[in-house]
Amino acid sequence: MSSNYARRGVSAGKEDVHFAIRNLDKGLYPSAFCKILPDLSAGDPDWCTIMHADGAGTKSSLAYLYWRETGDLSAWRNLAQDALVMNLDDMLCAGATGPFLFSNTIGRNKFLVPREALSEILEGMEDVFAMLAEYGIEAVNTGGETADVGDVVRTIIYDATAFARMPRSRVVSNEGIAAGDVIVGMASFGKAVYEKEYNSGIGSNGLTNARHDVLSSVYAEKYPETFDPAVSRELVYSGKYLLTDTLPDAPLNVGKLLLSPTRTYLPLMKEVLNTHFDQIHGLIHCTGGGQTKCMKFVEKLHVIKNNLFAPPPLFRAIQECSGASLTEMYQVFNMGHRLEIFTDEQTAALIISMAEGFGIAAQIIGHCEAAPENKLTLHAGGEVLNW
Amino acid sequence: MSSNYARRGVSAGKEDVHFAIRNLDKGLYPSAFCKILPDLSAGDPDWCTIMHADGAGTKSSLAYLYWRETGDLSAWRNLAQDALVMNLDDMLCAGATGPFLFSNTIGRNKFLVPREALSEILEGMEDVFAMLAEYGIEAVNTGGETADVGDVVRTIIYDATAFARMPRSRVVSNEGIAAGDVIVGMASFGKAVYEKEYNSGIGSNGLTNARHDVLSSVYAEKYPETFDPAVSRELVYSGKYLLTDTLPDAPLNVGKLLLSPTRTYLPLMKEVLNTHFDQIHGLIHCTGGGQTKCMKFVEKLHVIKNNLFAPPPLFRAIQECSGASLTEMYQVFNMGHRLEIFTDEQTAALIISMAEGFGIAAQIIGHCEAAPENKLTLHAGGEVLNW
Repeated sequence: MSSNYARRGVSAGKEDVHFAIRNLDKGLYPSAFCKILPDLSAGDPDWCTIMHADGAGTKSSLAYLYWRETGDLSAWRNLAQDALVMNLDDMLCAGATGPFLFSNTIGRNKFLVPREALSEILEGMEDVFAMLAEYGIEAVNTGGETADVGDVVRTIIYDATAFARMPRSRVVSNEGIAAGDVIVGMASFGKAVYEKEYNSGIGSNGLTNARHDVLSSVYAEKYPETFDPAVSRELVYSGKYLLTDTLPDAPLNVGKLLLSPTRTYLPLMKEVLNTHFDQIHGLIHCTGGGQTKCMKFVEKLHVIKNNLFAPPPLFRAIQECSGASLTEMYQVFNMGHRLEIFTDEQTAALIISMAEGFGIAAQIIGHCEAAPENKLTLHAGGEVLNW
Repeated sequence: MSSNYARRGVSAGKEDVHFAIRNLDKGLYPSAFCKILPDLSAGDPDWCTIMHADGAGTKSSLAYLYWRETGDLSAWRNLAQDALVMNLDDMLCAGATGPFLFSNTIGRNKFLVPREALSEILEGMEDVFAMLAEYGIEAVNTGGETADVGDVVRTIIYDATAFARMPRSRVVSNEGIAAGDVIVGMASFGKAVYEKEYNSGIGSNGLTNARHDVLSSVYAEKYPETFDPAVSRELVYSGKYLLTDTLPDAPLNVGKLLLSPTRTYLPLMKEVLNTHFDQIHGLIHCTGGGQTKCMKFVEKLHVIKNNLFAPPPLFRAIQECSGASLTEMYQVFNMGHRLEIFTDEQTAALIISMAEGFGIAAQIIGHCEAAPENKLTLHAGGEVLNW
């Protein structure tokens, strides 16, 4: 599948990006999850700044496909949430809990995407901010830019940029991750108290593979505008499901499972950081790289994840359709938890019970041991996987 | 041409965008050029915030075309400048002179755009910041996101988002624009002292039309990835020029004229705002809407522009190829000046002489008279045009 990923024009490892930014400065806390800069706009030496960007990726192509196929405009509603939460949860891993200022950029093919879709997307952005406000988290829409650029965009692309200031004393630098730490995993799936319906847990990573591996080739003929014509036809919508098909044990159709908006952990994590900040040794957002992501942020540790969540239904369907190995699955997808908290065992128990109050399944999924060099072991599906 | 614009999937008036954002708040100074918010991140009641987003639009498709056709990687070098300056000069019209924090998002088709192109783009961003630093203007790259999204992007899209705090006492709200004001126009073309070569003045607006109207149909066959296949073939690269052809009176080839990076007026305008702030009644960036842009920011005035710059060579070539009327040309393109300063006559003279020191041609291009309702008159090419 990794090679299918490459053949579909995507790189989970982002080698080209790392090449292009190889000379850029890493910020004040190089092991923090986000780049952290001095307080450039207000100049307080005790404060710092995060400015962060991320997008909904190819999930926009899926929203388009679902809307065209079903006529259901609400397919657009959660697209902003994907981009917003990819930013918010990255930033919360560095300790930020707001206020957050957000701007967004939309590149649109005007022939294909009507203004009603733009309205849904922008109103969906306000939905997220309204939900966060209920939990005392301030996030504000400062404006943005929507450009009609059909010569560069097939359907639509949605990106968001966030800004936050925070006291340096509240930064989670990940430098405290150490041997003896346990790892609390926060489920990416289920239904949190602040969510409107079941969440498949897919998030916003691996969507190019997920779409093509799961969905049927009927969509290749019907909607050639939803994929790159340079990709080999056998890799385009090579799955067996229609958008409206259902999976065993999942309460939504396949299209809606794939479109499930990226869950934010902020309402819960704001409380966790308020009450247990000194015991939080590290926070990892399992995005690109899936369950191997943590390895970029630890030093001389053997990370052992031996009590992972069972993969929720959508991930099982992706594996079944693609025939991918477990190794491949776990390094592209989150497979069940998208946030990891490195802490001590007592704090872990308290956090797990706080998560319960938010309707989020949480458990100790592993721990850290000292090692001469970094190593990762996953116990998954009866196999032991090593990196 | 307006209808050709629409048939090419672009709307200079952005009606759909205005529909989608119709319910959004207009900020603290509704007639300022940018949306201005309270100081949300630091909470100082005497300060305010601008967070702004803009992109290089379809100029990225042109950079790709030029690079593919000539092998010249430097075609990518100025793409960041287009997005950065579209932000910077919008923000300077609200009075901001830095520090500016910048983040960027790149959506790339990995099959077509190599990492060397990404490096050129990101190094070009640093070039702009280094040039601004020489003039005491602080602009910082905070990071960004590059995503491989060939399923949504044909070649590449480049957007940038900027953040600035500023004292409310330094905001240019445009509320001071009044009958009796003269309008200083700052040339968009020529060679400012901080520019490396001749600038055609094209900026980053109207590029979809400019590319297709001027360039030859040989590129339609050769590079179908550079345009939307839904556009009627007679509107695709319907001009007569090759990228390497030259125009009379212009020192660069046609491709380089179209790729000319958007000029920033910041080095000059920082000095103007430092020395003449109280006399600056309004600042307008002639972007989408071209020479009609100012009409969104005035009230009960007849704006008369009767001493415009003669259109520089590239705009003449666009008109010649497209057969567009002057009315159409002046509402899509800047046609010679991209920044307007509304002020008194004495200050105008001082500013014009400051501009000379920066190698920027400037002149009084018009004035404002009281009127029962807004009206715009342009004297151009021997015609009198009214809106």
